[in-house]
Amino acid sequence: MRLTHEQQAEIDSQRQAAAPTRRATVPALEDMLYGALPVLDHGFVRVIDYMGDDAAVVQAARVSYGRGTRRVSEDAGLIRYLMRHRHSTPFEMCEIKYHVKLPIFVARQWIRHRMANVNEYSARYSILDREFYLPAPEHLAAQSSSNRQGRGAVLEGEEAAAVLDMLRHDATLTYDHYAHMLNEGADGEPADPGRRGLARELARMNLTLNTYTQWYWKADLHNLLGFLSLRADSHAQFEIRAYADAMLDTVRAWVPQTFQAFLDYRMGAATLSAQMLAVVRRLLAGDPVDQPGSGLSKREWAELMDTLGRA
Amino acid sequence: MRLTHEQQAEIDSQRQAAAPTRRATVPALEDMLYGALPVLDHGFVRVIDYMGDDAAVVQAARVSYGRGTRRVSEDAGLIRYLMRHRHSTPFEMCEIKYHVKLPIFVARQWIRHRMANVNEYSARYSILDREFYLPAPEHLAAQSSSNRQGRGAVLEGEEAAAVLDMLRHDATLTYDHYAHMLNEGADGEPADPGRRGLARELARMNLTLNTYTQWYWKADLHNLLGFLSLRADSHAQFEIRAYADAMLDTVRAWVPQTFQAFLDYRMGAATLSAQMLAVVRRLLAGDPVDQPGSGLSKREWAELMDTLGRA
Amino acid sequence: MRLTHEQQAEIDSQRQAAAPTRRATVPALEDMLYGALPVLDHGFVRVIDYMGDDAAVVQAARVSYGRGTRRVSEDAGLIRYLMRHRHSTPFEMCEIKYHVKLPIFVARQWIRHRMANVNEYSARYSILDREFYLPAPEHLAAQSSSNRQGRGAVLEGEEAAAVLDMLRHDATLTYDHYAHMLNEGADGEPADPGRRGLARELARMNLTLNTYTQWYWKADLHNLLGFLSLRADSHAQFEIRAYADAMLDTVRAWVPQTFQAFLDYRMGAATLSAQMLAVVRRLLAGDPVDQPGSGLSKREWAELMDTLGRA
Amino acid sequence: MRLTHEQQAEIDSQRQAAAPTRRATVPALEDMLYGALPVLDHGFVRVIDYMGDDAAVVQAARVSYGRGTRRVSEDAGLIRYLMRHRHSTPFEMCEIKYHVKLPIFVARQWIRHRMANVNEYSARYSILDREFYLPAPEHLAAQSSSNRQGRGAVLEGEEAAAVLDMLRHDATLTYDHYAHMLNEGADGEPADPGRRGLARELARMNLTLNTYTQWYWKADLHNLLGFLSLRADSHAQFEIRAYADAMLDTVRAWVPQTFQAFLDYRMGAATLSAQMLAVVRRLLAGDPVDQPGSGLSKREWAELMDTLGRA
Repeated sequence: MRLTHEQQAEIDSQRQAAAPTRRATVPALEDMLYGALPVLDHGFVRVIDYMGDDAAVVQAARVSYGRGTRRVSEDAGLIRYLMRHRHSTPFEMCEIKYHVKLPIFVARQWIRHRMANVNEYSARYSILDREFYLPAPEHLAAQSSSNRQGRGAVLEGEEAAAVLDMLRHDATLTYDHYAHMLNEGADGEPADPGRRGLARELARMNLTLNTYTQWYWKADLHNLLGFLSLRADSHAQFEIRAYADAMLDTVRAWVPQTFQAFLDYRMGAATLSAQMLAVVRRLLAGDPVDQPGSGLSKREWAELMDTLGRA
Repeated sequence: MRLTHEQQAEIDSQRQAAAPTRRATVPALEDMLYGALPVLDHGFVRVIDYMGDDAAVVQAARVSYGRGTRRVSEDAGLIRYLMRHRHSTPFEMCEIKYHVKLPIFVARQWIRHRMANVNEYSARYSILDREFYLPAPEHLAAQSSSNRQGRGAVLEGEEAAAVLDMLRHDATLTYDHYAHMLNEGADGEPADPGRRGLARELARMNLTLNTYTQWYWKADLHNLLGFLSLRADSHAQFEIRAYADAMLDTVRAWVPQTFQAFLDYRMGAATLSAQMLAVVRRLLAGDPVDQPGSGLSKREWAELMDTLGRA
Repeated sequence: MRLTHEQQAEIDSQRQAAAPTRRATVPALEDMLYGALPVLDHGFVRVIDYMGDDAAVVQAARVSYGRGTRRVSEDAGLIRYLMRHRHSTPFEMCEIKYHVKLPIFVARQWIRHRMANVNEYSARYSILDREFYLPAPEHLAAQSSSNRQGRGAVLEGEEAAAVLDMLRHDATLTYDHYAHMLNEGADGEPADPGRRGLARELARMNLTLNTYTQWYWKADLHNLLGFLSLRADSHAQFEIRAYADAMLDTVRAWVPQTFQAFLDYRMGAATLSAQMLAVVRRLLAGDPVDQPGSGLSKREWAELMDTLGRA
Repeated sequence: MRLTHEQQAEIDSQRQAAAPTRRATVPALEDMLYGALPVLDHGFVRVIDYMGDDAAVVQAARVSYGRGTRRVSEDAGLIRYLMRHRHSTPFEMCEIKYHVKLPIFVARQWIRHRMANVNEYSARYSILDREFYLPAPEHLAAQSSSNRQGRGAVLEGEEAAAVLDMLRHDATLTYDHYAHMLNEGADGEPADPGRRGLARELARMNLTLNTYTQWYWKADLHNLLGFLSLRADSHAQFEIRAYADAMLDTVRAWVPQTFQAFLDYRMGAATLSAQMLAVVRRLLAGDPVDQPGSGLSKREWAELMDTLGRA
């Protein structure tokens, strides 16, 4: 269950309240505020708060006194210029805060992005819910034979069923034992008065890495885009990409001009090495170049051909 | 002149606009929004935007789904607990953005606080205004004889007048030469068509360190409090303390519970070393202790006596 | 097994090599270099590299041209002054790098210290070893009844045995299933040629949080001391404290003057709030104060009495 | 004067001392250690200490137990792979510390790189030397007419002489007044016993931005390369580029494999936007594309043609 009735009621209650503010406000993001965007089988991403908008990027770049009276097209042009030349500090002037529910193994990748603020649910202090991630059939992939950190073909039939059974069984069993060792009833009293419960900070070590945790996570727009450029990338593990994709939707609603510049100059862009550039110049000059004569490794050659649409 | 008519008009215009938001809103800070709090002779601090409030600290500490239904006193108690035990991450969940006009030598101290976002007016790109800081008579102090980085008695009479004349003369002269080297008229054309202007990025090197610059500066509440604990301290240089004092007023309006906890557990608190604690214990036990027998240096002894109100 | 023969041979080989350097060198830390300090049942901390020494702190604080000719006592005095007044930047001029083997649930606490550099063994790319943490009998504690994130009395007899059996059983079982799902033989070929192995990045989710991982971790001395002040503290969870304690030994060998100042002004020091200071002043004045009349909460009163040795 | 005899003697003395170490050591960088690389008219860059080498990058990427027994070519290949795919964390495992003497206006650009450690000479505490930067004739450039933050043609003849006179005159005058206001003799006594000296923290505000300051600056290899990619770039202001160029020489000596990868994949590389890539594909397909039909702005089109060697 993604959200309990009580949680949904709290969210609904927050969504109904409104107050006037003099701050920059983005109606499209206000519409999404507090609502849970579903991710994976039990997870979500919720926008909890935000600061700034596209105009705030421009305002900071110009260190201006007001919101400015320039035309929208001028602002968009400046944002594109900033993105293209990696002038990152104006994008740091916007900030967003999410509430995220995610499996622990995803949280372990995510937390490597250090330029962010995090408050995670404490399993030292509280008891984790009985929820764990099980891949949907289409995401249950074999090990890639060519890429040591990638996936190959999807498992099917009995192979898939056996894996899913194993994951479900082990997560269920270890959680049951976790609960048994804790020995806490719903009323806070021992479930079994005849024995003592293990300390929460110890019992949690019995949980598997697909157990769900949750956190508040806050970052500025520059660091958020850095996160998304890595985690919404096709090389990212599917499970974290699912979160990044949901967050991309929130960025599109929040700062549409910055979002488009990000697509054009980051997500859809390619960096060519000095050697790759030399190859492109030779190709444009009509010079027939092949991999052995290119100075590129086979892998780099393949990447370049892919980038140039010649794969 | 702190603000031109045009700048004040832009500010007034922003203050009149309002929009509904679902976000946490703080009326007392909304009242201050965009307005310039005067600092020093030409400087100011303006709150440009903010995210979160006292309840957002609590919400993050609890990783809760809504704003919560606890009583205000419970929230205040949790905030005090977090502050006392230096659980800093929940305070990182609030963010504030300022527009600041300040002398360059103050900016050089300020920028040492790295966990913040900054966009400064670029003197490579634009021309700085003819404004420089001159200390008010009561702040024109002699070098301290006891503290190498402190101030002693205030200069008076001719001594003070001579210093002020020198500061004013040199700032004016170097600015005039700066403008002369730039050779730019109000219309963007050369002021003197008979010669070329020096590059802005070079001409600026002729300015003195009391020239005013300005920037957008954004930080989370935890790092802001760290800044204030150092810069609103009595050991900070007066000129940066003047900014910190103005910012303290904005924090009081923004997050009153956090502000009170900050006063009690940080600004008004004292850290006693292991040796100092041993002295206090002996004193409480009625054991007469003097500096030579205390194990403390003279300076530490004096600090301890001061802390204990026995100076 | 903490280290294989092959790993120990690699370490021994590195310990035997030496080269001349003009850099600051600390013989006491050189003695420890590369050697594994055992922690918990299978973990370790190894110092891999370091930069600077006590004199480097002094050199940076003075921005001096050479190593200086001051007496050792002057340097120690300056270091103590810097520590006492929280002048942290000179301590950032020393750096240390560790190789650490640790359970995942400890790694999850550790990684929250963001001002550090980390490279963790990738379970997306490689296969984790069959090693997991099982608490020693004296650390198998019940949940504290007074502190929600603390431990109470040690479990004994059948209670302890049941918990240990469960932890061991579940870690073994989930690892066996992990290996089964991977289906990789020692030669890189499928262990069972009749089926495909699950992608490593997926299979790992079946592991429990007491599985050992390892990483390279590097920090400057200031941030290391921040880590140690929190993690070598009595409120830290025992398992991470065990690592912090081993690291304290390395700091003592590396920068003995800084280490002593750290003990005196941080680890052995106490911060008294404004209200606590008022109580101490009243006590010193002979004024009988009790908790209700102190303005302190019961918990704060107890903490103060403990600090003052009156518990 | 770049270095006094006393300073040079301290440096020579440090260069003559050597000690054995088990740490990774780089003879080519040891040769440079402590020596001052001259920059601008009075500045310098000195390598003070370093940690790690190319092999340390590889070691961290592999989380290995020893220095490894792989061939050099394999290590170089891994380093190139890491650089190409922006796997930045292994490069954070190397660290370098510099002592730099630089004009204040350069320091103000430099300090914007926040992921570094800095101790600057304190003009609050000490007295700055009478040294200021004056551009060499070939660097005294007019304002660019096309680029608001760039330089145009070099000033010559009387124009140049007038500017240099002005810069020299003003720096000299303001320094003389600074010294006068301080009123400190070489013996620490008042130069003029008949009046009091102004506090150092105030007097410094009279200095111009070309006054030299100095600092210890330390960064990890990843952040150093980020600094160099921006500051050794042709768009950087000449004066900071002069420092970056000297530092590039130290990186080449220190980590030659990383340095080459950095040249190939960062300094010599180009990032093409989604629209630019589309143009390149059309060109390669023999499709005649011009700027109006390209979807690129004139400026982006010019950049692309320049990148493709068709300018």
